[in-house]
Amino acid sequence: MCRWLVYSGTPVLLSDVLYRPVPSLIDQSLRSRMGVETTNGDGFGIGWYTDDIDTPAIVRDTGPAWNNRNLREISDHVRSPLFFAHIRASTGTAVQQTNCHPFRHGRWMWMHNGLIAGFDRLRRDLLLTVDPELFPHIEGTTDSETMFYLALTFGLDEDPPGAVARMAGLVERLGHQIGVEFPVQMTIAASNGERVWVFRYSSRRESRTLFYSTCVESLRALHPDVAWLHRLSADTRIVVSEPLGDLQGAWNELPESSYGVIPAQDGEMLAAFDVHGLTGPGIG
Amino acid sequence: MCRWLVYSGTPVLLSDVLYRPVPSLIDQSLRSRMGVETTNGDGFGIGWYTDDIDTPAIVRDTGPAWNNRNLREISDHVRSPLFFAHIRASTGTAVQQTNCHPFRHGRWMWMHNGLIAGFDRLRRDLLLTVDPELFPHIEGTTDSETMFYLALTFGLDEDPPGAVARMAGLVERLGHQIGVEFPVQMTIAASNGERVWVFRYSSRRESRTLFYSTCVESLRALHPDVAWLHRLSADTRIVVSEPLGDLQGAWNELPESSYGVIPAQDGEMLAAFDVHGLTGPGIG
Amino acid sequence: MCRWLVYSGTPVLLSDVLYRPVPSLIDQSLRSRMGVETTNGDGFGIGWYTDDIDTPAIVRDTGPAWNNRNLREISDHVRSPLFFAHIRASTGTAVQQTNCHPFRHGRWMWMHNGLIAGFDRLRRDLLLTVDPELFPHIEGTTDSETMFYLALTFGLDEDPPGAVARMAGLVERLGHQIGVEFPVQMTIAASNGERVWVFRYSSRRESRTLFYSTCVESLRALHPDVAWLHRLSADTRIVVSEPLGDLQGAWNELPESSYGVIPAQDGEMLAAFDVHGLTGPGIG
Amino acid sequence: MCRWLVYSGTPVLLSDVLYRPVPSLIDQSLRSRMGVETTNGDGFGIGWYTDDIDTPAIVRDTGPAWNNRNLREISDHVRSPLFFAHIRASTGTAVQQTNCHPFRHGRWMWMHNGLIAGFDRLRRDLLLTVDPELFPHIEGTTDSETMFYLALTFGLDEDPPGAVARMAGLVERLGHQIGVEFPVQMTIAASNGERVWVFRYSSRRESRTLFYSTCVESLRALHPDVAWLHRLSADTRIVVSEPLGDLQGAWNELPESSYGVIPAQDGEMLAAFDVHGLTGPGIG
Repeated sequence: MCRWLVYSGTPVLLSDVLYRPVPSLIDQSLRSRMGVETTNGDGFGIGWYTDDIDTPAIVRDTGPAWNNRNLREISDHVRSPLFFAHIRASTGTAVQQTNCHPFRHGRWMWMHNGLIAGFDRLRRDLLLTVDPELFPHIEGTTDSETMFYLALTFGLDEDPPGAVARMAGLVERLGHQIGVEFPVQMTIAASNGERVWVFRYSSRRESRTLFYSTCVESLRALHPDVAWLHRLSADTRIVVSEPLGDLQGAWNELPESSYGVIPAQDGEMLAAFDVHGLTGPGIG
Repeated sequence: MCRWLVYSGTPVLLSDVLYRPVPSLIDQSLRSRMGVETTNGDGFGIGWYTDDIDTPAIVRDTGPAWNNRNLREISDHVRSPLFFAHIRASTGTAVQQTNCHPFRHGRWMWMHNGLIAGFDRLRRDLLLTVDPELFPHIEGTTDSETMFYLALTFGLDEDPPGAVARMAGLVERLGHQIGVEFPVQMTIAASNGERVWVFRYSSRRESRTLFYSTCVESLRALHPDVAWLHRLSADTRIVVSEPLGDLQGAWNELPESSYGVIPAQDGEMLAAFDVHGLTGPGIG
Repeated sequence: MCRWLVYSGTPVLLSDVLYRPVPSLIDQSLRSRMGVETTNGDGFGIGWYTDDIDTPAIVRDTGPAWNNRNLREISDHVRSPLFFAHIRASTGTAVQQTNCHPFRHGRWMWMHNGLIAGFDRLRRDLLLTVDPELFPHIEGTTDSETMFYLALTFGLDEDPPGAVARMAGLVERLGHQIGVEFPVQMTIAASNGERVWVFRYSSRRESRTLFYSTCVESLRALHPDVAWLHRLSADTRIVVSEPLGDLQGAWNELPESSYGVIPAQDGEMLAAFDVHGLTGPGIG
Repeated sequence: MCRWLVYSGTPVLLSDVLYRPVPSLIDQSLRSRMGVETTNGDGFGIGWYTDDIDTPAIVRDTGPAWNNRNLREISDHVRSPLFFAHIRASTGTAVQQTNCHPFRHGRWMWMHNGLIAGFDRLRRDLLLTVDPELFPHIEGTTDSETMFYLALTFGLDEDPPGAVARMAGLVERLGHQIGVEFPVQMTIAASNGERVWVFRYSSRRESRTLFYSTCVESLRALHPDVAWLHRLSADTRIVVSEPLGDLQGAWNELPESSYGVIPAQDGEMLAAFDVHGLTGPGIG
């Protein structure tokens, strides 16, 4: 499996979030405590939005994050208000740049932790469902990228939670057809550069862990003496596969079968996520 | 495009063929004289059969061949009676190991120089034609690997020239349907470990160059004083995108729209290659 | 040998300089017209200063620049007022990240095109001359990095032209001692983040080419209709191994045995460069 | 730190030793039980001798061993009577091919687990002690390679245990001079293609683990029903940082401060290893 991180808020150096906390995501690439695999050394990726450029930058490489100098250099010199980071433990597919997260299409970034059970047998049918206009943009061979292009096919642009639910619903339906009892295991982050949607879901209802940071105001009240908290805007949030650092009260588990929106829409950050019976428009 | 080489005959060190001739294939990776592109630096691969192991070894990497030390080390220490080598100039697809030639399926190896014109638009339909049992084995995104799996689908095991012809015929038919006038450009090598089939064909009948070595007996008569020719068995042959070394009389162009079999079957090494009207069993 | 580029002036996206001109430096990695080698595919590097961070960022990799996606991504999303780019053709030393340019020490960046003749035999003595405090910072095995640490040893911080002259003088003296007639061949760029010094020199007085861009005001007068020239500050300059793009009047050759300072000091950008008799303080 | 393996005996496929045991060395790259670091993902290398070629083949790469396909391919197709394998966890030096083990010089191979404490400060003086004729062959920046060239300088060809002792003695003496209490921590394997010498030593007398396999005859007596034991010659031995597989009675710890020779010389495989007062000919 993998570990991932989303940052959204006051522009910061990437390294302030990726390297400075103890433990950090980069530490987790070598020694994760909560992951199914303790080592996430099969490639990594970062993606960041800038204020004045339409599409995010994506930098990915196939070696471990912990010894990658270019990742450190970029992180120490690039600021962003919204970025993704991902460290990969392959579930079998090739270790190559096009299989590293995040994936990008236009303004969208996407990353995933988990797997589609039985993907080898499902892949062909899932690819067939991808919009033929989108199909040529698929470059790798992962379940994660296939899920992204299915979500794009199912309307990610207009209705992110609905599109992701239809994607997961399709995977479940096709999986069940070939006898896979629990086809979907996923935490997912998707962003269009303005908002981020994070999802936690699995067919078995035992999803990979996912945590979001406590709102900055509450954290300041808890830790009035932590200086850097005062430099963050009120809407700054981090979402991670497992907690960073050791600031008490900083992390909250995203509930099973739910999703979050950052910044919150209509004041609500969290909502239930249900894929029941959703399998995409015109799909069976 | 690319450059490739096939060796079949007396077991030799790979480096005797890959590095020793002047110019060699490895020289051509930096400076090809006959290729459409002069530099072939987007990855390379070798594949070799051994006497007692069922499947060939495949070693591929994404950097240039000319500075790769592991390639040199392996070539200096491994002997084989039958091996492939390929240097790649990408026509657009990602530079990654799974896009490097040769490709392997079971005992079969396959490599290609050329391209499918309009592949971006044809890829989905071509992949759909691949036998669903074979589909999960496709790991990369090249036209070359797709051609391999189509040939496997169309009976490469039983009738190599027929299967390759049906593959090329299908590509031509689908290409014409979307308005591509000359869909196929290819030189191809395929082997099952016992024989090698080499093909030269293009829809425009202006195919990439391909050369085969003169039979060893004739070369010995031409060059009685060249010692190493006496160490080669009579059936030793090399097939290359462009000539190696400078031994006069050593190279012959494979005719346009033809294929060769090594060792020759029924005494005939060369035959005409025609794809007219062939598009695979049950296709169209 | 190699090709390199320095940009100093109005902050721009790296890709505006690295990719947009026709031909660009990235084109030259595949097909240089003026280089001793036409292909520069043995690694590359970029280094950029930002306004608020003390040390420059350095991103280097061992493959060719022309097919590197991360280089393209970074270039498309990072702006800088002062950056270096380098594409490498190894003269024999290993193709590894620590041998790629630019090199960095503190605020300083350094890159080189050329070679030290007889470096294999001179390396030990040159390394011995490096300040023992600096010695542990040498990570690679190139002549270029050794030249950098010699220049640092000889006072690069206080007197860049003097330090570079003493470095080159030492190489010449030690080279002559072991019978190398023309030990130094170099174009060099060095920067402390405020100014850039560029050098063109060789023992044979037949140095690798180096060009600097015409001052922006003159270019505007020549090409009043070229819009982007109006967005550049008057002190913007580019220095390159061979000209980029095709804007007439844009490029001037740096004279043999000279150096330049950007922005100009005391109104003078160019000066003669002489190493005669200079071999470093306390060196023989 | 690292993990390593030596095989000497009946020619076998590399994969029979590297991949087949459970756990195997490749498993240990991801999850070592006895190492100081549990993950050894900073590069790997193999080196093998063949019967008819003077120098061993060395294949090294910078990514993790566990996901490297070329390593698997080579291991599945190459047989050797004598080979080394090494998986690396960097102690700080760059992750690059020239820092991966095994190192080679002529017929010699060398690999190391451990470190020289204070190497940053000792490196210059250690390099100065290397024979100037050998110095240009040093390609990387590790303590391990420096130890190799010191041992070569001190007579590895004539007296391997003596040369290694003088090397370790020099490191201890220079280390003590700059206040490092325990400068040497090492298990080392060295071979000239005919014999292998393995060393276990540390200044603190708390050396990294090292195990050698029980002699084949005794193993056969213990496990009369294990078929593959009957295919091995009587002198087959494996030496490893930590035991492979789960065959009871198969592994014995190399005693603290000792070395072994394979095949045994004069009937004795093990001997005490003492560096006291040994610092190389003409060294202090």
